Amino acid sequence: MANAIDFYFDFSSPYGYLASAKIDELAAKHARTVAWRPILLGAVFKITGQQPLPTIPMKGSYAKHDLARSARLFGVPFKLPSKFPVGATAPSRAFYWILDRDPGLARKAAQALYHAYFADDRDISNPEITANVCAKLGVDRAELTQALNDPAAKERLKSEVDAAIERGVFGSPYVVIDGEPFWGADRLDQIDKWLATGGW
Amino acid sequence: MANAIDFYFDFSSPYGYLASAKIDELAAKHARTVAWRPILLGAVFKITGQQPLPTIPMKGSYAKHDLARSARLFGVPFKLPSKFPVGATAPSRAFYWILDRDPGLARKAAQALYHAYFADDRDISNPEITANVCAKLGVDRAELTQALNDPAAKERLKSEVDAAIERGVFGSPYVVIDGEPFWGADRLDQIDKWLATGGW
Repeated sequence: MANAIDFYFDFSSPYGYLASAKIDELAAKHARTVAWRPILLGAVFKITGQQPLPTIPMKGSYAKHDLARSARLFGVPFKLPSKFPVGATAPSRAFYWILDRDPGLARKAAQALYHAYFADDRDISNPEITANVCAKLGVDRAELTQALNDPAAKERLKSEVDAAIERGVFGSPYVVIDGEPFWGADRLDQIDKWLATGGW
Repeated sequence: MANAIDFYFDFSSPYGYLASAKIDELAAKHARTVAWRPILLGAVFKITGQQPLPTIPMKGSYAKHDLARSARLFGVPFKLPSKFPVGATAPSRAFYWILDRDPGLARKAAQALYHAYFADDRDISNPEITANVCAKLGVDRAELTQALNDPAAKERLKSEVDAAIERGVFGSPYVVIDGEPFWGADRLDQIDKWLATGGW
């Protein structure tokens, strides 16, 4: 059986959100599965010295325009959140906590969290809102809320972020196929071709 | 007659080089012409606080890999130059000096300069080498060499760079179609679609 594709993303990354809407279907087309792996870009930027996109002069305003245009092209509902970017600790910890209990549900939770933030303008950096979104999918709200403050959930996320950085993940979305890295929602066409051909 | 497409690029930008190999054909497909506009990213980075790609931790190594892979996909000869990045003052001044005398020749000179740097590993930041490349196309070598140190050529380039920054150009390649901006060689597909449809 072929390796899963690794899909790294930050819950506060709009290009990660765009890619998240396409990656499963793209992988399935080539009989692959996808391992969703939320990370925290804040930790990465400490190493690379990069800044969040919207804060960069000129590039920030372009990005807002490009995002809206790309979302329309992707056919994905998108509205730049009122509070953007935000820290993605709560949704990321929630994701791994659910993943360790029900992988299929974790995928659905990731999609619901991304949608809540980038389509419905709900601030998922707030643990209460993250818990509400997950509870709606059947996750036990009380258990999850408690888990979000648990040192184990903190450690779980930290080890995932550290492993991603160790692997060279510096942005979102970042996809790895059999060791080959692809950065950006604008690499989906190359990913498609790579999966079809095995590389060039 | 439809407006020309503005194609901004830095002679030291490999993604600019990749786009340069496609942009004329792409525009012609939609009955458009292209105004080639070399700029100096160094001047832009002073405003945006960005760093040259290869110097950014993690992102720099990825970019080298992505460039080689994208060049193969584009079918464009590419070798990361021994000295990279370099200041693009000489080739840019040469371009505008030729442009003001023979626009068609300026285009050919730009293509030859890009090819010299990214396919043949010749350091076009050296005015001697820039002059050699242009002389081979029939440009008067002595006149051009003198012009490269002329305050008029310096001022000509500076006003182009200032105008580009004023317009929001923060990277290379950067294409503007009837006011609509597109950044990156990976936006060629969107450019194609925009030219075909008039926008979405």
